[in-house]
Amino acid sequence: MKRYQQLAHDIAALIDNGVLTPGERVPSVRQASKTYRVSPATVYQAYFLLENRGLIHAKPRSGYYVCEHASAPVPPSAPVDSPVSTAVDVNDLVFAVMRAIADPAVIPLGSAFPCASLFPMERLCRSLSKATKQLDAQSLVSQLPQGHHDLRRQIIQRYTLANVPATLDELIITNGALEGLNLCLQAVTQAGDFVAVQAPAFYAPLQALERLQLNAIEIPVDSQGNLDLPFLRRALEKYPIKACWFMTSFQNPLGTTLGEADKQALVELLTQHRVPLIEDDVYSELYFSPRPVKPAKAFDRQGWVMHCGSFSKSLAPGYRVGWTCAGRFAQQVERLKLMTTLSASLPAQAAIADYLQHGGYDRHLRKLRQSLKAQQQQMIAAITRYFPDGCRCTTADGGYFLWLELPPNVDSLKLFHVARSHNISIAPGPIFSARRAFRHCIRLNYGKPWSADIDRAMQTLGRLVAEF
Amino acid sequence: MKRYQQLAHDIAALIDNGVLTPGERVPSVRQASKTYRVSPATVYQAYFLLENRGLIHAKPRSGYYVCEHASAPVPPSAPVDSPVSTAVDVNDLVFAVMRAIADPAVIPLGSAFPCASLFPMERLCRSLSKATKQLDAQSLVSQLPQGHHDLRRQIIQRYTLANVPATLDELIITNGALEGLNLCLQAVTQAGDFVAVQAPAFYAPLQALERLQLNAIEIPVDSQGNLDLPFLRRALEKYPIKACWFMTSFQNPLGTTLGEADKQALVELLTQHRVPLIEDDVYSELYFSPRPVKPAKAFDRQGWVMHCGSFSKSLAPGYRVGWTCAGRFAQQVERLKLMTTLSASLPAQAAIADYLQHGGYDRHLRKLRQSLKAQQQQMIAAITRYFPDGCRCTTADGGYFLWLELPPNVDSLKLFHVARSHNISIAPGPIFSARRAFRHCIRLNYGKPWSADIDRAMQTLGRLVAEF
Repeated sequence: MKRYQQLAHDIAALIDNGVLTPGERVPSVRQASKTYRVSPATVYQAYFLLENRGLIHAKPRSGYYVCEHASAPVPPSAPVDSPVSTAVDVNDLVFAVMRAIADPAVIPLGSAFPCASLFPMERLCRSLSKATKQLDAQSLVSQLPQGHHDLRRQIIQRYTLANVPATLDELIITNGALEGLNLCLQAVTQAGDFVAVQAPAFYAPLQALERLQLNAIEIPVDSQGNLDLPFLRRALEKYPIKACWFMTSFQNPLGTTLGEADKQALVELLTQHRVPLIEDDVYSELYFSPRPVKPAKAFDRQGWVMHCGSFSKSLAPGYRVGWTCAGRFAQQVERLKLMTTLSASLPAQAAIADYLQHGGYDRHLRKLRQSLKAQQQQMIAAITRYFPDGCRCTTADGGYFLWLELPPNVDSLKLFHVARSHNISIAPGPIFSARRAFRHCIRLNYGKPWSADIDRAMQTLGRLVAEF
Repeated sequence: MKRYQQLAHDIAALIDNGVLTPGERVPSVRQASKTYRVSPATVYQAYFLLENRGLIHAKPRSGYYVCEHASAPVPPSAPVDSPVSTAVDVNDLVFAVMRAIADPAVIPLGSAFPCASLFPMERLCRSLSKATKQLDAQSLVSQLPQGHHDLRRQIIQRYTLANVPATLDELIITNGALEGLNLCLQAVTQAGDFVAVQAPAFYAPLQALERLQLNAIEIPVDSQGNLDLPFLRRALEKYPIKACWFMTSFQNPLGTTLGEADKQALVELLTQHRVPLIEDDVYSELYFSPRPVKPAKAFDRQGWVMHCGSFSKSLAPGYRVGWTCAGRFAQQVERLKLMTTLSASLPAQAAIADYLQHGGYDRHLRKLRQSLKAQQQQMIAAITRYFPDGCRCTTADGGYFLWLELPPNVDSLKLFHVARSHNISIAPGPIFSARRAFRHCIRLNYGKPWSADIDRAMQTLGRLVAEF
């Protein structure tokens, strides 16, 4: 940990422990420089970091003050300065949510996964047998580390049909999109760098940033899915941002989508600043509109977009096959892949390649989209019926997540624990924020076919919310 | 990069560019401290680093001198101080070797992989179909991230039969052993830490160290496979070593094995120093002796050994299923797994679980060992027949590698390029050393059934060596 990070960490701890209270002035730069025996420049760096995290704010000609919301009961985060303790902090929560959904007795409203019963697992298994039998010995090494050749061809064909510029050269098959996203991030950053993420964001980028000791710059997303582009532009001017990790369509946890014009503006802005966009696009096939939604990659002319996709949410959960089209960074990603996991499992890759060619993927997708849309309507109806006034939810155009804003007095972390004791899992808002914000929000999963059990769980959840 | 690393880097560059020549005195500590405006302590740290890398050496009461072999035509390495350029340096070579073996026209003597024709791919494919059909939807999430439950049980049973203490709690299935090894390393180190590796070592740890900005301490291994334990003890006393990454049986590239008494002494030494051993044991099933060889893990009483295994070399190449029994660090490894690739491919895991139970794994292994042993003898005979005097090779008790020491005037990097033009791949010595040592050594793979093509390739190779 660098000195300014250590200092920021110490001051965050003072705020956290209530030694410095909201509204109070933090030590002046000169005073802190003396107390902590560091240079004024180091103090400035530390204060910039704390400001960026929303813990303190500057008043012109007066100094720095603790923000009003800074001392929440949960530590207001320190994703970079105390990588170990914060990592444990997020992960304890994420692990608790994971454990809850692993328990078959629990209604998995907090799950990040779709329900496997919606997928053509039997047909896929036929492709698996057939394609694995046909694998020849040479193919076991000749396709390292980029992946199964036919599968790569099929993926590029789908890009081409969607009018998205992507080439075989830049395509690398990964162990699910999660690996692709992590490799892309590692290819373009070093410890201490700044990375822009959405707020709220899927917890994977937050965990990755902590793990790799990167600083998060949170870019707000509103409930319609609009990314605050002027805010991003200011951030790019203020910080030497090395990458943006954004989910652009049917975003987890909001479910919302960035408009096409904004996607284009985003790519242009980042190209102008020469900053790569790591585009997490794992729900792209799950659109409810008549026509598909374009990714930001569609507007990429100079290879700054590293587009990451997956079959885990649309075809083959558990097979762990994803990919990245990493643009101008493809070779770096390929080398990282070679050094860390070598290649994705070949039978799974061959199975999906065969299925894409012969299995009727588009027919399956049409059915899947219809099911998800119907399930979304059922869940919205249940919220209307069972939840108290003052609850608002996003209406997504695809995917299988709802973002539910509860009345401000509801603490979603407490709700998580109470719901868990009723055998219901939810995903509490703070796991989707580097600052542990969104305490009165939860993410609900409607990826499981509607049932009396789910209906009952929603009823219970509505009652628990009302009891706050 | 820290100041002392920067300084070491600058001085390494002077040596590399020939500004400081072999035998020449490097600036005194006082002089360097003045010139570079750093404290004497920083200069000492930098010189320790350069000494450890074999670039300079101290003469008592006289100062530091550039080593005789330091300014080789290939940059004498700087795995930590210039992570980017060195990473490219090793990887260019490793990639070139990989590309060579991916070409079906090339005789893959430089391959790291066994030949798939020695494996029961068809029988395994039957297990794959059957077991994948039986996967239920719930199992897709309930076994995250530790892995397929039956497979984990089977692996622990094999440990138990071999009298190696290992429990279900500490076992995590990974995307091949390579992922397990990388996760173990990340679980116990941070950038800047010191890690002990063997010299020569498999290139994977060297790449991982570069990628994670860790310092390599090379512990010599002789051609009988003996690790220099007194050297390791001194290293442990001198440096705050955070982990050892050692291959203990049928080591890649030597093929040799550390004796059981030494394995026990190693575990005791590391336990005493509270330093984890990352034990790369992917060839353990490929022993030629009547009885199996014990891993260091067999002597682990306090959970300091993180044992990493794989089915890629013994049963299922391309399936990418490995594991780690990570001892007291299991939870950290599990969390890293969850954050980076979530889980290994389920069909591949289920297939191997079924095969282990019904496929006749031990029968297959007996046959495999016999084939490999016969192929080893054929390759040694070919070396005797075709290679000039002054060549010496290791005789391993298992695995499928030979380490061949060529006459001192042979440059294995040049040999690699010349052999490649004859459609033969070899693995040149320098890719197995953080210091790019072993320039007159090569690793040969005898994992492919003997054929006229291989015989001819050995004859050509012998002639090329003689021409140096």
